[in-house]
Amino acid sequence: MSARTPAPPPPALTRWERRTEVPLLAASLVFLAGYAFRVLAPYDAQPWHDISLALVGATWLLFVLDYAVRLRLSGLGPRFVRVHWLDTLVLVLPLLRPLRMVQVYTAVQEKRDRPRLGLYARVISYAGLTAVLLGVSAALSVYHWEHDAPGASIRTFGDAVWWACETLTTVGYGDAVPVTAGGRIIAAGLMACGLALLGAVTGAFSSWLIQVFRRQDEQEPPASG
Amino acid sequence: MSARTPAPPPPALTRWERRTEVPLLAASLVFLAGYAFRVLAPYDAQPWHDISLALVGATWLLFVLDYAVRLRLSGLGPRFVRVHWLDTLVLVLPLLRPLRMVQVYTAVQEKRDRPRLGLYARVISYAGLTAVLLGVSAALSVYHWEHDAPGASIRTFGDAVWWACETLTTVGYGDAVPVTAGGRIIAAGLMACGLALLGAVTGAFSSWLIQVFRRQDEQEPPASG
Amino acid sequence: MSARTPAPPPPALTRWERRTEVPLLAASLVFLAGYAFRVLAPYDAQPWHDISLALVGATWLLFVLDYAVRLRLSGLGPRFVRVHWLDTLVLVLPLLRPLRMVQVYTAVQEKRDRPRLGLYARVISYAGLTAVLLGVSAALSVYHWEHDAPGASIRTFGDAVWWACETLTTVGYGDAVPVTAGGRIIAAGLMACGLALLGAVTGAFSSWLIQVFRRQDEQEPPASG
Amino acid sequence: MSARTPAPPPPALTRWERRTEVPLLAASLVFLAGYAFRVLAPYDAQPWHDISLALVGATWLLFVLDYAVRLRLSGLGPRFVRVHWLDTLVLVLPLLRPLRMVQVYTAVQEKRDRPRLGLYARVISYAGLTAVLLGVSAALSVYHWEHDAPGASIRTFGDAVWWACETLTTVGYGDAVPVTAGGRIIAAGLMACGLALLGAVTGAFSSWLIQVFRRQDEQEPPASG
Repeated sequence: MSARTPAPPPPALTRWERRTEVPLLAASLVFLAGYAFRVLAPYDAQPWHDISLALVGATWLLFVLDYAVRLRLSGLGPRFVRVHWLDTLVLVLPLLRPLRMVQVYTAVQEKRDRPRLGLYARVISYAGLTAVLLGVSAALSVYHWEHDAPGASIRTFGDAVWWACETLTTVGYGDAVPVTAGGRIIAAGLMACGLALLGAVTGAFSSWLIQVFRRQDEQEPPASG
Repeated sequence: MSARTPAPPPPALTRWERRTEVPLLAASLVFLAGYAFRVLAPYDAQPWHDISLALVGATWLLFVLDYAVRLRLSGLGPRFVRVHWLDTLVLVLPLLRPLRMVQVYTAVQEKRDRPRLGLYARVISYAGLTAVLLGVSAALSVYHWEHDAPGASIRTFGDAVWWACETLTTVGYGDAVPVTAGGRIIAAGLMACGLALLGAVTGAFSSWLIQVFRRQDEQEPPASG
Repeated sequence: MSARTPAPPPPALTRWERRTEVPLLAASLVFLAGYAFRVLAPYDAQPWHDISLALVGATWLLFVLDYAVRLRLSGLGPRFVRVHWLDTLVLVLPLLRPLRMVQVYTAVQEKRDRPRLGLYARVISYAGLTAVLLGVSAALSVYHWEHDAPGASIRTFGDAVWWACETLTTVGYGDAVPVTAGGRIIAAGLMACGLALLGAVTGAFSSWLIQVFRRQDEQEPPASG
Repeated sequence: MSARTPAPPPPALTRWERRTEVPLLAASLVFLAGYAFRVLAPYDAQPWHDISLALVGATWLLFVLDYAVRLRLSGLGPRFVRVHWLDTLVLVLPLLRPLRMVQVYTAVQEKRDRPRLGLYARVISYAGLTAVLLGVSAALSVYHWEHDAPGASIRTFGDAVWWACETLTTVGYGDAVPVTAGGRIIAAGLMACGLALLGAVTGAFSSWLIQVFRRQDEQEPPASG
């Protein structure tokens, strides 16, 4: 998030990142799907359980490999862990991968070579999409922690998704609330991220609307002008 | 929402849109009134029930006709469905028509040929009015889904309006909460739209207030200046 | 809220407004104190009840008189009611007088002839003060409507103040919620005003903080500059 | 918060503030730790109770001493109490010391002589850190007031931290709510500060994201340019 980075990254690292972004995005979605199956499937769906576990494990190994290659190519040594703290955090908690979406989004946009969306539309679609993916991840994890806790109000995955909507938008009715320590920690993370991401959506939408109305002024100046 | 549109729309389409905006706005209000009657009237108000059903059906047909004409005039062919996704969505869910208000508002303003409101006042009135209309639509739909659901806390239309206020402003006391899947999906939509629209109202009001105080500085510079 | 007003107000009106702002602010506080006494005092405090009623009535008459003089001086005739809709609203519901504070604040500042606060500090103090006064007025009215309603959760004036805090900041725990129609209408008004006013406080604070950190950059440019 | 200060502070005061910021920050953390021990430890942990009380008292004395020296050096006399009202407030309620963090943060950054973070990253880290420290202080105080109140929903320190998260982000589920007057006053303060601080975080994040996407436009202009 620094505005002045001390030195540009080595070109080999940039090339690696460009090439791996899209495969890694696919791997993230596979990871999410595998995790979702683990959490949502009934316990006795035996063959599928093992397959989803294998998928989760394999994609995680891919993430570890990518992290190792980038650590090597960056030439930073152990400092990489601290400088790229977001990558380190995402390696440990792969459900947070949506937070890295800004780079992937850029890479995908470039490859498609289409006329780009306007500035605010890009901010809204990026921050909105990240918020949705984080919400889904949080709903899965909270469902995992809460659904058989005593006194829980989040009992089905539908409840968990409803809870994630309430929490991301800071409405917070209180009809679905995490009661375990694990669920509450996830909720606190979702609140913090959601506040920032939806604040960005709101801010960009507000700026876009003001821009639309201002443009209208320029095209046809009012009678008094 | 794109800042750079590839090509301007054909003039025939623009002319059509100018001419139909106000009749379509009237049709939207008739649709809303008819839907409100269907939802709120007691079941045995027989002749009126059929009239309101006919109104809803007739106005929907008008919307379909308008969509077809615009698809034809645009010269985009099937791509129209994707490019004008907001119009497509509004065709399928006519209660979302307030989201198209920005164009109508502009058309109405031009016809009245009055000195226009300031920039921020227009943003506030546009976003606020859209939020109110969406809130009323959401209150109607939620009342429709919830009022005879088991364990519902939204039992009267007054409750539904109160719920819409709570939700749009993200206060969310939790005394009136949707419990059915349909009600919750509508609520999630209202939260997302409401957050963006009321964020725009707030942002424009904040900018307006700062502008008022800044102007005061310019008119009478402080003692130290 | 218009950025371009068609014509400046007549000088006699401006003079009248300058002169009456401070007395009217005092009258507003007397009105609020009288209303607070009516609402909060036990029913059998006989002599004081009549005095507070007289105070409320007398100050209201003052407001009516001021409105009539301004209507006359403006030279707008019956259009005054619509052009100055905020004044009309405040005349009918004098508890909304804090919404007119921006003019009073300006007048008071000029009289005191002190070095003025910075731009953002003025916005924060104005919007914050207005929000506090509106919150107190809303707490009084809601207490008036709710405290002896069946099933009410707002039973003491302390509860009403706590409810106003929750509502203005959009936290909305739901432990104190209006249940009567009157209380809910007041609450909806407070939510709308509170959202806009506290959004202005937040926006101005945010701009001020960014300004502070930007200034720091200018005074001592970073090592890399 | 004034943009135009009448006169620069005397150099002796500036020197004093530079030198004492970091020791006073350490003292604040010791104060917080001591207070946390007083509140959280079981009643019969006898020797430690006295030590924590001594720590709290000693650090408070340090704060009083610092206030007295600065009052003297400023040359303002009794006006210091009103001009530096934030310092006065922090002296009386030392748990609010995080609110003074902006100066300390600046001082620490300068000493470390590292390349500084970008503007928005500094605003986010400053406002976020202040919000976290205030949240911890509020959780401690609310736990102190609430944990043995009749009908309390905040019974453990974990509940109090969860309550602080809910309140700072304005989610407000309502599962953990202060019921005593003391707890509610602390909550109202946390709501007001939290709203402003997290609004600043959100605003800076939003501006940063828009900046990132705008930069991308400048580096590689779109096809239509």
